[in-house]
Amino acid sequence: MYLENINSPADIKKLEISQLRTLADETRDALINKISKAGGHQGPNLGVVEMTVALHYVFDSPKDKIVFDVSHQCYPHKILTGRKEAFLDEAHFHDITGYTNPNESEHDMFIVGHTSTSVSLALGLAKGRDLNGRKENIIALIGDGSLSGGEALEALDYAGEYDKNLIIIVNDNDQSIAENHGGMYKTLKKLRENGGKAEDNIFKAMGLDYCYLDDGHDTDKLVALFKEAKDIDHPIVLHIHTIKGKGLPYAEENREAWHAGGPFHVEDGSPVYPFEGGENVVFNCLKELLDNNSNAIALNAATPMGLGFVQGVREEYVKRGQFIDVGIAEENAVAMAGGIARNGGTAVFGTFAPFFQRTYDQMSHDVCLNDSPATFLILSPGAYGMNSNTHIALCDIQMFAHIPNLIYLAPASNEEFTQMFRFATSQKEHPVAIRVAPNLADSGKADDTDYSVLKNKVERRGTKAAIIAVGGLLPMALEAADKVKEMTGTDITVIDPHFVSGLDEELLESLKADHSLIVTIEDGELMGGYGQNVAAFYGDSEMKVHCHGISKAFHTEFKPEELLAEHGISVSALAEEIAKAL
Amino acid sequence: MYLENINSPADIKKLEISQLRTLADETRDALINKISKAGGHQGPNLGVVEMTVALHYVFDSPKDKIVFDVSHQCYPHKILTGRKEAFLDEAHFHDITGYTNPNESEHDMFIVGHTSTSVSLALGLAKGRDLNGRKENIIALIGDGSLSGGEALEALDYAGEYDKNLIIIVNDNDQSIAENHGGMYKTLKKLRENGGKAEDNIFKAMGLDYCYLDDGHDTDKLVALFKEAKDIDHPIVLHIHTIKGKGLPYAEENREAWHAGGPFHVEDGSPVYPFEGGENVVFNCLKELLDNNSNAIALNAATPMGLGFVQGVREEYVKRGQFIDVGIAEENAVAMAGGIARNGGTAVFGTFAPFFQRTYDQMSHDVCLNDSPATFLILSPGAYGMNSNTHIALCDIQMFAHIPNLIYLAPASNEEFTQMFRFATSQKEHPVAIRVAPNLADSGKADDTDYSVLKNKVERRGTKAAIIAVGGLLPMALEAADKVKEMTGTDITVIDPHFVSGLDEELLESLKADHSLIVTIEDGELMGGYGQNVAAFYGDSEMKVHCHGISKAFHTEFKPEELLAEHGISVSALAEEIAKAL
Repeated sequence: MYLENINSPADIKKLEISQLRTLADETRDALINKISKAGGHQGPNLGVVEMTVALHYVFDSPKDKIVFDVSHQCYPHKILTGRKEAFLDEAHFHDITGYTNPNESEHDMFIVGHTSTSVSLALGLAKGRDLNGRKENIIALIGDGSLSGGEALEALDYAGEYDKNLIIIVNDNDQSIAENHGGMYKTLKKLRENGGKAEDNIFKAMGLDYCYLDDGHDTDKLVALFKEAKDIDHPIVLHIHTIKGKGLPYAEENREAWHAGGPFHVEDGSPVYPFEGGENVVFNCLKELLDNNSNAIALNAATPMGLGFVQGVREEYVKRGQFIDVGIAEENAVAMAGGIARNGGTAVFGTFAPFFQRTYDQMSHDVCLNDSPATFLILSPGAYGMNSNTHIALCDIQMFAHIPNLIYLAPASNEEFTQMFRFATSQKEHPVAIRVAPNLADSGKADDTDYSVLKNKVERRGTKAAIIAVGGLLPMALEAADKVKEMTGTDITVIDPHFVSGLDEELLESLKADHSLIVTIEDGELMGGYGQNVAAFYGDSEMKVHCHGISKAFHTEFKPEELLAEHGISVSALAEEIAKAL
Repeated sequence: MYLENINSPADIKKLEISQLRTLADETRDALINKISKAGGHQGPNLGVVEMTVALHYVFDSPKDKIVFDVSHQCYPHKILTGRKEAFLDEAHFHDITGYTNPNESEHDMFIVGHTSTSVSLALGLAKGRDLNGRKENIIALIGDGSLSGGEALEALDYAGEYDKNLIIIVNDNDQSIAENHGGMYKTLKKLRENGGKAEDNIFKAMGLDYCYLDDGHDTDKLVALFKEAKDIDHPIVLHIHTIKGKGLPYAEENREAWHAGGPFHVEDGSPVYPFEGGENVVFNCLKELLDNNSNAIALNAATPMGLGFVQGVREEYVKRGQFIDVGIAEENAVAMAGGIARNGGTAVFGTFAPFFQRTYDQMSHDVCLNDSPATFLILSPGAYGMNSNTHIALCDIQMFAHIPNLIYLAPASNEEFTQMFRFATSQKEHPVAIRVAPNLADSGKADDTDYSVLKNKVERRGTKAAIIAVGGLLPMALEAADKVKEMTGTDITVIDPHFVSGLDEELLESLKADHSLIVTIEDGELMGGYGQNVAAFYGDSEMKVHCHGISKAFHTEFKPEELLAEHGISVSALAEEIAKAL
């Protein structure tokens, strides 16, 4: 047992090269211990165990600096840099995050959770080193899937001009989250099949030096490769072939399903908590559209499962030319959707809200400036979305609501989503984005709203006070109104705005007659959010406006209900606030 | 004279191939007529004259669809598609815009002004065609400089997987706006030098078919090439070597200076309105920093002149390793700046506000999540910035002010800018962006503010009403206050907020004592802007708040003063509004 003595990279260096295989096996065991009990990113971490052991054997972290792209493959690195207890001891599983974090360890360079950033960030570290006249090694570790992202490609290109030490490790397991997409993957395949030789080498074409290693699980060869690259005086790509999910046969077999997931039984990979199924309103709507409109197409960017198009389902639509995955390339997906809409197609692009952040310019300039009637599904925005600071998306309204020509709809129920989706994909006037909050549920109330007329919906008409609740918070507002009724006897008004890209000024004007307080609630950041529009509208009137949203911070590891309650957004807090004002 | 009979591409097809040279010469003459009298993008348009003639000879626009990247090379296309009067007759010069625009002609596919979008947009048109079962040719025309942008690279990669007709013309004049940067340009050079043959072909490495033409000004060869590519059943790159500025010797000679500019004398290229010089506060500050701090570095993304680092000046700083141009690759520039800041460097990245739109995710995730103390100069935002809808930037506050950890400063004068810049580049706590409105001027008042304490500045303390004026609008606010004094005898308060990433709540609270009206003015969009924060702050109080900003639209071809006045932002309108309220 070597691992028990490994508390930092210095301890690894005390081992013989021949002992590294055993250390790798022990590291993998620690990794499997945790992921089988607590879930996490399985495949990416299993695939880099040997590479990480070799990296820390050869390089001198933290003097030498390793940037992990996406950083969802950093678990072995954490195990080997003083954080092994968080993998071995269930009581300590939650001491660490699933991503690199400088607040956790001096061996972590950045907090990262989005793909395709490592080469740029490493170039920055390298340039910082140069300005200070130092000589440490700077290493970026990037997976093949992340290479297709614009930021990574821009950085590879610039690295081809840069002229000092920079080691770019391309961890090629022939897989993105789903399968890879893009022409460069044909080239990577040729390189893997021919021991790193192929007519048109994408990395050399970017001006980079290049070296290939076929067995990325052989610690001897990895150590030799890294020793050769160490202290190199120019940028080099080390293209290393690995097996995603290495060490668990079922994970090696089914790489997409084993990219990430929950606890499982190690012996056969069966889940501890089997998936219960359940309807997916996004998938149902897309399926209805694609099955009934042969000019319609769904686009995704490496997250087909986000749209419910899992393996076994999407193939039929791919064959029909109605479902495309552009790989990790959201900018391209948004612009393509705009182009499709301009040439007679009905295009829907959907991905998770944090990754839409990469498309601001494409949404504004490529699509909205041209008023191209494409549909965008912003999946899982707000407090009920992902709760790691690497993946929060509390600012989707800030990003998109102000863009001219864009209609940004915020359904409050699955029924509203369905009706909005049908509207968006049947009209040819404007780009439409739909905010798919993850806490949407069936309301039991059919929705036949004509969304070509943008109006707020008065869920309940009362007097004195009104709550305007964005999207998934409508049920909370209705409950709060019930409670106000109990407490004060007053029926207050509850409004579902339906759209957040503007105000229903007529309705707001009419409320002045018999209301003195408007309370807005939203599941995103307060600053620059929806509520402030309402406050500004009433700025010259006697109406009091209380805006509630989340404070400006990279909140993390929160429970959505608790985070909202801390910001005055809970049934009891709202009821008390309104009762007091009445 | 053929041109007089050319009113659409159909007229070009009536000519013999041998007559196209003459048509090209006449087209270039028309082009020179306008650009010498009215200015515009000189080099890019002069370089594509023959190519455009040949394109319209071979392809059938608008059935076949041509997407012009950036579209600042679309003048010959406009001349040949029914808009020649706008080049021949000074009275009609302003009938058209400088970019493609479907509202102007059915031969224009998109309104475009940002680079690197054409391949994505063309892929969209192609996919729309496929869904409709049609067969037209889809052509993207992209310059070598634009290839380095992430969106273009993502699209080239996806095009390498796509399997139907798509013709990507790479117009390679070996020049971006300034010189090219990035490793791929070494490969393009090899291809140019070896008749399209080189070991590692960047396009083939992306999975694309490829063809090279060395003389991009030979109409015979261009026609032959396009005829061969027409109706091709898969994507192909036609790599065509052209000369930027072709036809004007001084423009061919000095490609950077002749990328774009004002009117000139055709005989020698001398400017009609010689540049008067004048101090550039951004350049002066950067120079001071770089000369006094050897760990400091300025980054730009293909617009070094935006920072005042013109040819002849920047070379010294490039040599010192203190000035880098990453090419058209803003995502990489922002992330690199963050990386430099994390490794002991003082990094400043500056570019024009519209191009910062491409960096939302890098600003938020790569830099601000990591609280990396880099400095960002947002050049020319707001109503006084560029006034074409392709380049407006009325939403910089919307994009950046809400991002956690980012301090967004808004100087009201050159002196404030200087002090803010010194603060930003000497602190190591947070990322700082500075809003460099183009109407900043010397105020004559030295600024010794300590910007590590974020407070609004009370320019003038009065009573009853206060104007909070963002950035460059402070002089207008002061004048309006003078006028209110004249009209009512009341001294009102005028506030320069200094920062727009939050509120000075203490000050705002104190105003409640003796103020009943706050008027906010900003030179950007109202929705999601600065003023609404103020309105929300006072939502529960008796304070009246009037927020003034620009309406949500892609405004274009406006005069800033007029656009602002239309939205109640002028000395007289503000004075009247406040006087009335008092």
